[in-house]
Amino acid sequence: MTLDSITDDFRSARSFTERLVAPLSAEDCLVQSMDDVSPTRWHLAHTTWFFETFVLCEQPGYEAFDPQFNFLFNSYYNTIGAQYPRGQRGLISRPGREQILAYRKHVDQQLLQRLECSQFAAKYRPLIEVGIQHEQQHQELILTDIKHVLSCNPTWPKYQDLPVDTAKQTARDAPITIDEGLYEIGHTGSGFSFDNESPCHRVFLPASSLESRLVTCGEYREFIDAGGYERPEYWLSMGWSAVNQNQWQGPMYWMSVDDQTMQFTLAGLCPLDLDAPVTHVSFFEADAYARWRGKRLPTEFEWEVAASRAPLGNEEPFVDWFVDRDLAIHPTRSPSGFCGSVWQWTASNYLGYPGYQPARGAVGEYSGKFMCDQHVLRGGSVATHSSHIRPTYRNFFPAATRWQFSGIRLAE
Amino acid sequence: MTLDSITDDFRSARSFTERLVAPLSAEDCLVQSMDDVSPTRWHLAHTTWFFETFVLCEQPGYEAFDPQFNFLFNSYYNTIGAQYPRGQRGLISRPGREQILAYRKHVDQQLLQRLECSQFAAKYRPLIEVGIQHEQQHQELILTDIKHVLSCNPTWPKYQDLPVDTAKQTARDAPITIDEGLYEIGHTGSGFSFDNESPCHRVFLPASSLESRLVTCGEYREFIDAGGYERPEYWLSMGWSAVNQNQWQGPMYWMSVDDQTMQFTLAGLCPLDLDAPVTHVSFFEADAYARWRGKRLPTEFEWEVAASRAPLGNEEPFVDWFVDRDLAIHPTRSPSGFCGSVWQWTASNYLGYPGYQPARGAVGEYSGKFMCDQHVLRGGSVATHSSHIRPTYRNFFPAATRWQFSGIRLAE
Amino acid sequence: MTLDSITDDFRSARSFTERLVAPLSAEDCLVQSMDDVSPTRWHLAHTTWFFETFVLCEQPGYEAFDPQFNFLFNSYYNTIGAQYPRGQRGLISRPGREQILAYRKHVDQQLLQRLECSQFAAKYRPLIEVGIQHEQQHQELILTDIKHVLSCNPTWPKYQDLPVDTAKQTARDAPITIDEGLYEIGHTGSGFSFDNESPCHRVFLPASSLESRLVTCGEYREFIDAGGYERPEYWLSMGWSAVNQNQWQGPMYWMSVDDQTMQFTLAGLCPLDLDAPVTHVSFFEADAYARWRGKRLPTEFEWEVAASRAPLGNEEPFVDWFVDRDLAIHPTRSPSGFCGSVWQWTASNYLGYPGYQPARGAVGEYSGKFMCDQHVLRGGSVATHSSHIRPTYRNFFPAATRWQFSGIRLAE
Amino acid sequence: MTLDSITDDFRSARSFTERLVAPLSAEDCLVQSMDDVSPTRWHLAHTTWFFETFVLCEQPGYEAFDPQFNFLFNSYYNTIGAQYPRGQRGLISRPGREQILAYRKHVDQQLLQRLECSQFAAKYRPLIEVGIQHEQQHQELILTDIKHVLSCNPTWPKYQDLPVDTAKQTARDAPITIDEGLYEIGHTGSGFSFDNESPCHRVFLPASSLESRLVTCGEYREFIDAGGYERPEYWLSMGWSAVNQNQWQGPMYWMSVDDQTMQFTLAGLCPLDLDAPVTHVSFFEADAYARWRGKRLPTEFEWEVAASRAPLGNEEPFVDWFVDRDLAIHPTRSPSGFCGSVWQWTASNYLGYPGYQPARGAVGEYSGKFMCDQHVLRGGSVATHSSHIRPTYRNFFPAATRWQFSGIRLAE
Repeated sequence: MTLDSITDDFRSARSFTERLVAPLSAEDCLVQSMDDVSPTRWHLAHTTWFFETFVLCEQPGYEAFDPQFNFLFNSYYNTIGAQYPRGQRGLISRPGREQILAYRKHVDQQLLQRLECSQFAAKYRPLIEVGIQHEQQHQELILTDIKHVLSCNPTWPKYQDLPVDTAKQTARDAPITIDEGLYEIGHTGSGFSFDNESPCHRVFLPASSLESRLVTCGEYREFIDAGGYERPEYWLSMGWSAVNQNQWQGPMYWMSVDDQTMQFTLAGLCPLDLDAPVTHVSFFEADAYARWRGKRLPTEFEWEVAASRAPLGNEEPFVDWFVDRDLAIHPTRSPSGFCGSVWQWTASNYLGYPGYQPARGAVGEYSGKFMCDQHVLRGGSVATHSSHIRPTYRNFFPAATRWQFSGIRLAE
Repeated sequence: MTLDSITDDFRSARSFTERLVAPLSAEDCLVQSMDDVSPTRWHLAHTTWFFETFVLCEQPGYEAFDPQFNFLFNSYYNTIGAQYPRGQRGLISRPGREQILAYRKHVDQQLLQRLECSQFAAKYRPLIEVGIQHEQQHQELILTDIKHVLSCNPTWPKYQDLPVDTAKQTARDAPITIDEGLYEIGHTGSGFSFDNESPCHRVFLPASSLESRLVTCGEYREFIDAGGYERPEYWLSMGWSAVNQNQWQGPMYWMSVDDQTMQFTLAGLCPLDLDAPVTHVSFFEADAYARWRGKRLPTEFEWEVAASRAPLGNEEPFVDWFVDRDLAIHPTRSPSGFCGSVWQWTASNYLGYPGYQPARGAVGEYSGKFMCDQHVLRGGSVATHSSHIRPTYRNFFPAATRWQFSGIRLAE
Repeated sequence: MTLDSITDDFRSARSFTERLVAPLSAEDCLVQSMDDVSPTRWHLAHTTWFFETFVLCEQPGYEAFDPQFNFLFNSYYNTIGAQYPRGQRGLISRPGREQILAYRKHVDQQLLQRLECSQFAAKYRPLIEVGIQHEQQHQELILTDIKHVLSCNPTWPKYQDLPVDTAKQTARDAPITIDEGLYEIGHTGSGFSFDNESPCHRVFLPASSLESRLVTCGEYREFIDAGGYERPEYWLSMGWSAVNQNQWQGPMYWMSVDDQTMQFTLAGLCPLDLDAPVTHVSFFEADAYARWRGKRLPTEFEWEVAASRAPLGNEEPFVDWFVDRDLAIHPTRSPSGFCGSVWQWTASNYLGYPGYQPARGAVGEYSGKFMCDQHVLRGGSVATHSSHIRPTYRNFFPAATRWQFSGIRLAE
Repeated sequence: MTLDSITDDFRSARSFTERLVAPLSAEDCLVQSMDDVSPTRWHLAHTTWFFETFVLCEQPGYEAFDPQFNFLFNSYYNTIGAQYPRGQRGLISRPGREQILAYRKHVDQQLLQRLECSQFAAKYRPLIEVGIQHEQQHQELILTDIKHVLSCNPTWPKYQDLPVDTAKQTARDAPITIDEGLYEIGHTGSGFSFDNESPCHRVFLPASSLESRLVTCGEYREFIDAGGYERPEYWLSMGWSAVNQNQWQGPMYWMSVDDQTMQFTLAGLCPLDLDAPVTHVSFFEADAYARWRGKRLPTEFEWEVAASRAPLGNEEPFVDWFVDRDLAIHPTRSPSGFCGSVWQWTASNYLGYPGYQPARGAVGEYSGKFMCDQHVLRGGSVATHSSHIRPTYRNFFPAATRWQFSGIRLAE
């Protein structure tokens, strides 16, 4: 990445965030509908706080835009200081959205001005790259979080009133087979990667095969119709508890209206599309579905080996593809390769690769401390920016998580 | 009340509500900081829904402004239909505040237009009077709720940046004494009253005396300094549990900043005024304080007898007095009579008077169903409109409630 | 009461307790099935601790049986010291029941030996009387608590395998009418009473009438059959919440087995007796039932006035009546007067009478600190000893309480 | 295993269980001190139920000892039927311990009688072997559960009043090193193993080394003294939450008495032995300790490779070693090999080995459904029977678990 491109990438990531929030009112941006969700305005401020704290505050003479923001918009960096309680982010009506947008503008100007100095740009490029990737992660959360927020409103408001892509799921190709053997896993090369993708290391894999296509809503409904949610034998013990405690009867956002199955989407309430990839299922549901089919979920290593043979195309269903075409952001098709459309639950727990060490200091809190009882997802979704994803990218969530665009690819 | 005056009173109550919310942003109006609190916007809509549902929807040809509002803005009227869960009112960002203000305008116009017909006015006057009183109750909640909302923000924002009244607490006059005997309790006469103030009935009272003045912050601090919050012998058993579970160390909104006792007010963080009436204490604290002083709280009957001898003046600290003078809404003085400044906890439980029967239908859900484990408060506060209060008025809250402007008058 | 009689009463109360626990195994005596319930063994030890702490420990030279018991078996006397957490009483398997019975024997011997000295007897008679009454209250709890314990066991074990009284509910006599006027309320005379029955004072009552009979299971089932548990209009708001949260569909211990309504009793599972008084209903249910019938609950003052005209007979259904006859302890008949069979919920909150002051010191924690959000019951039940009850006796429980033998008498 | 030996092993396992419960009273055997703990009597009955349900009930003519036991003593086998709620096992006082011991005797007799038929023995040997292993797992739980039960009693009762082994921790030998390469993992050979130890498969390991000794209490206390429990940088994010929510300040059962660090053991309260292996630490604490030392926990694969080189001796600290010597069951020494003394947390999540498939039917519920968010422990503890353990044995618990005898071996 050249020094010019870091400036361009910064501008581009920051303005894409603002494009995503454009359809929302100041009030929409304030709501926190559950602990996992943050208000849109918090994402707007927190991503800005990241650049201010880790880059600008290091510069002599820089004065914080507002010293109270360090407490309000720090997420979980204990090294930086105390944090406002996560579950109460929706209670903070001031600063208002206008002031937060002014904060963004201020930090952008201060950073862009300093980036004109090539010495500064060279020194801070790595941190700014992390900040851009971080911004892109929050772009995804802005979409998944606002979808949850709007779904709590019984008037089913739309994030944006746009048409849904009418593409049909492609036909099922032959499965991708992997031979028994030693494989290299993890990131290599010069592009950006997070620390959890390293060190690159060898893993011994037994022979396996992965489906070429994602599981569809229609296929998943067969599981429901077969009594899948009432039969404990398909479920992990914790999954069965989750089904009963939460009274799950199908994927999140599915509901029955006048005997028709509807799905809440970012374009409002739509009839269920049986050919589209199933999404908003938990790891428990993905695992139970696979067991019912007599299959299993791939490990993240199998997934990575298979994905590295299927390079990204130009028509992959990532968020920028939808935004460029003025289409509703909603998974309607399987990707042509392994990436895009919905995150794919794997059978792997989120653990450090052999030899993994978190960086020192606050940035070291980014990944390592979350390596416990989370499950790896791969591939990106309709809410992920295409420049953010790669075959070695590891996403992770607890097993009961459903508000992300998460789906299923089978293996055996 | 003449028919003209019902129109004037309606206009005046509705516009006073809007005056109270003028200092708030759309975002301020959305926050629900705890279950007891409702968002300002919900109050704006719910009071409007009351007039629409109970008056306009009865009129042939009237079409609801938005049929979904009946679900969104019904509070607790089971007779009318199901209700959106109370604790989630802060999740509803749409309709936005602008649309809610349009809803108010629409209902006002429709009602005022119909009030020009004297037959309509005569028929609906009683219900519209209830609606006005209901609006005034929500005016009070708008203020107490937004105070709680803003107090959750560590930047201590002000509801309105206005000066605090500098009046000093009046000197302590002789106590008001009541002789043993039979007294009439409850509302008589032609003015408006709620059904819980009736039937008027006789109560036998032993001799007693009530303080002429409210307990001050300075007096209450003596209780704290004497270890009041650490000594179970002053507390009801449930009160002692509340102290320990909630880690109470003083009234709500008191805090220590750099060794100075500060108080969060609608005008932001202020030093504690030792001469002002103490407020934001629970029934438990009022009761413990009284026991520590070797006194007790008056019963609501004693209070009413004493109050009926001390008529309301023109300088009583009610909300309109503060608004008219551009002063911060905050209790700084005892009233000259028994009413105003802070609600006064009594020793009485909230029960129906002998022979009390709730009205039939939805309006009957107004009072009667809440007559359980609540404690009567009397006298109104700085958040109450002067036209809303009278000596027979009964307010009621659970014993642990602190977010209302609630204080203490002693008896023995 | 003569000095002889205090010794006799002490012996008699202590041995009656042991008679009540005779049918239980050591394991039965250990279980705590919910926070409100204490293990039988805890009752055995705590009543003993009461005599030891308040009488014996005051005597020079007396050494505590085991110093650790003061922490283990103090209930709620903060003045005496810290207490083992109430909800964990079922976790303490040691001292075992044998050791606790030895503790009882030791304290009994020590006390009886000292009671031979008439000076001691004269001085401590008042405290020992309180201790006997306290023992009798725990006798009642032993029965209500073990009933709850055994009801958690899906094998429906019997406390004791005895026949159920076959008496039929007496015919309904004319109601008892009370004229409007001033009445004396509270205890007078020389017999024992608790401090909450004093001071005797005057209350002005409107005219009223009380049913001569308790509400029966058959009458109560009409309320259920009429959809009483599905219609919010009959319920207090808190009651309606309790119905829904706890999924109440009828009185506690009623259940449907093979389409027959059964009732769990101290003699195991029995078919519901439609003529017997309904019991194990909460205040909420009593209040809703009365409203559905177009009646109301009596105030405790009305109840006391009516009861003072109906003296106790020899055939009242109190616990000693059942024990003497080897009958299962279970309400099958209305009392001939106002007392016995089931506690009767009144419309009154539990508050101190005018001028009430708790005693100084630990004994002062007996009543006063519980005067908040509890509801008065009158009359005693099949679990109460006949020597323990009188018309002025005030029992009290929170409105949702159902595990006591609590029933309904209507008024209007 | 010969047919004779299955009979011997059955007898021996069953009688060892009864030897373990001999020091306990019927009351001790009833207590359930938290959800994770089961009453001793439940273990006695459930292990018996296992043999009855899976073996005897399959035999023509066999009648269940008591048909209600199937509901009471089924743990989690949905295939078999509904289960009494786990958290309420301590509420069931009947059947009493005597009756449960009679149940054991009955089932033992019935099974032993049938085992005399060699055809029966041959057919059911595999299931009976599972039952014996299952019995041994519950032997361990009997000890860990009663330890927790007794620890809730502020009188610190002893499980058994026996001397504590005075052995000193052996000197630290050279670490065990593992070369990079492919290794076979999982069970082979003819002895018993659980299904989760199969299939045997190859794993590629980087070079590593494991400590020859367990971490001691003294070493662990250095971590505490260095502020380990107050510094988030050593902890996983979930671990840091656990520390704060549970207010952990050291291992379970450590407490400060008069400035001395004491440890609650099965022999009562003892001074902390600095040379003994640390135990009753969670995965979170093991992980944080390792990070503070600049080391890490071994993976279960590294552990297994190292352990397979260090065969079990005759002096390993397993439960039978302590029982045979009349010593208190308490870890005082590191094992000479890798197994014994305390379970060792590994860095591995509990997942199925490649190709793992649970068996069909109820026995298939034994392992597979628990493979989610649990962490593997290896090596057995002072509560494990020596005949139960082997290097491929996988134990597993959630990361916050502390009531097992769980400790730490470091790797790098």
